[in-house]
Amino acid sequence: MTYCIGMLVREGLVMMADTRTNAGVDNISTYRKLRLYGNDGKRLIAVASAGSLSTTQGAIQRVTKGLAHPETGKYENWGTFQSIYDAAIAAGRALRQVRDSMQDLAQAGVNFDATLLVGGSINGEPSRLFLVYSAGNTIECAADTPYLQIGELKYGKPILDRALHYDTPLNAAVKLGLLSFDSTMRANLAVGLPIDLMVAEAGAGQARTNIRIEESDDYYLELSQLWQQKLAKATDELPLPSY
Amino acid sequence: MTYCIGMLVREGLVMMADTRTNAGVDNISTYRKLRLYGNDGKRLIAVASAGSLSTTQGAIQRVTKGLAHPETGKYENWGTFQSIYDAAIAAGRALRQVRDSMQDLAQAGVNFDATLLVGGSINGEPSRLFLVYSAGNTIECAADTPYLQIGELKYGKPILDRALHYDTPLNAAVKLGLLSFDSTMRANLAVGLPIDLMVAEAGAGQARTNIRIEESDDYYLELSQLWQQKLAKATDELPLPSY
Repeated sequence: MTYCIGMLVREGLVMMADTRTNAGVDNISTYRKLRLYGNDGKRLIAVASAGSLSTTQGAIQRVTKGLAHPETGKYENWGTFQSIYDAAIAAGRALRQVRDSMQDLAQAGVNFDATLLVGGSINGEPSRLFLVYSAGNTIECAADTPYLQIGELKYGKPILDRALHYDTPLNAAVKLGLLSFDSTMRANLAVGLPIDLMVAEAGAGQARTNIRIEESDDYYLELSQLWQQKLAKATDELPLPSY
Repeated sequence: MTYCIGMLVREGLVMMADTRTNAGVDNISTYRKLRLYGNDGKRLIAVASAGSLSTTQGAIQRVTKGLAHPETGKYENWGTFQSIYDAAIAAGRALRQVRDSMQDLAQAGVNFDATLLVGGSINGEPSRLFLVYSAGNTIECAADTPYLQIGELKYGKPILDRALHYDTPLNAAVKLGLLSFDSTMRANLAVGLPIDLMVAEAGAGQARTNIRIEESDDYYLELSQLWQQKLAKATDELPLPSY
């Protein structure tokens, strides 16, 4: 399992992914699921992945090697896309190709589904964020609900629904994202630290922050403890029912 | 969809179920999914159901009409079980029978799965609570994790994990249950008010509370608003990250 969040607020883009993969609870590994391409000031493409590791790795490899555009026939890769939209659509094609190539195994009950978040900015365009489904189709993040999730998304959704807005500052969005991860990691062992984090200002072709938050991260530990205390206090303070 | 919680704490048993059923988002109805049997001071059996409405109604009908015990051949129903364990096992047999009778349709991709919570106390036994799976097998609620959920359970699980303990008083458990419903109903339109609520003291053969919490319920409205305010304040007060 996996949990990834992309948040697109007025100030910019935040993307986060855990690093745990598992094939059963007795086969757990750490894999990077958030990758940056470009990140050179001109182009920033951030890709987070959830689902079958073989499918997401296969799809990302295909785009890295170059994928023929279905109309022009021209080969495109992470270094040549002219917009984040183009990158998302191409990643969708790659995902679909890998999935289709596994069709015979899928019929035997093996699940090769996978989803991606593709966000960033190319040549100064406004930052954009897309969710790419297994079938290759995409949806775009918009201001009314300024986040997208993939993977084990339900446990950590309520806090985002309640607290994240388009006008939330970037570092407050990072804080909310970590609270969302905290709830998820408590509920599902298949989502775990470390968490990869990318923060980019709106329209930026380079990430402001590109770090891995480890188990020993002081801020995360403090946040997690304080949040538990504050939630306990808040629930205690609420009035009791008469029934 | 549905959401039901059973909480078994030192002071007693709380069971809650929403009342929304749907076959697609354009076909929504209100159905009772929490039923009490006995409730006469001697025997209290509370049954909450999630999943295929035809399966759960079919299974409950079978137990109401009477189900032959596989070993003794004697017919048992809600009025004759000698323990909550017997009631849970019989409900599981009924669920399995209904599900098996639909096997040909299930192969066509229709989902007839359903789950039950069966809780209460018969003839003064300590209150017990079971989760009954489609296959007829059961698990029992115990003090380390003093709750069981069925249906749309993920959105409302974090608050229970964080705040509910075996020593939580009964009315505080009701409060936490309503907060868990609040998070779930915000996230999934297929779970909705009114909520049926049953509260029984430990070992009691009669419910202390057996009510329906409607959309206009003053306490629920206040709780939901205060919770939103307190969560916003708590998240605001948490320190911001430096990254």
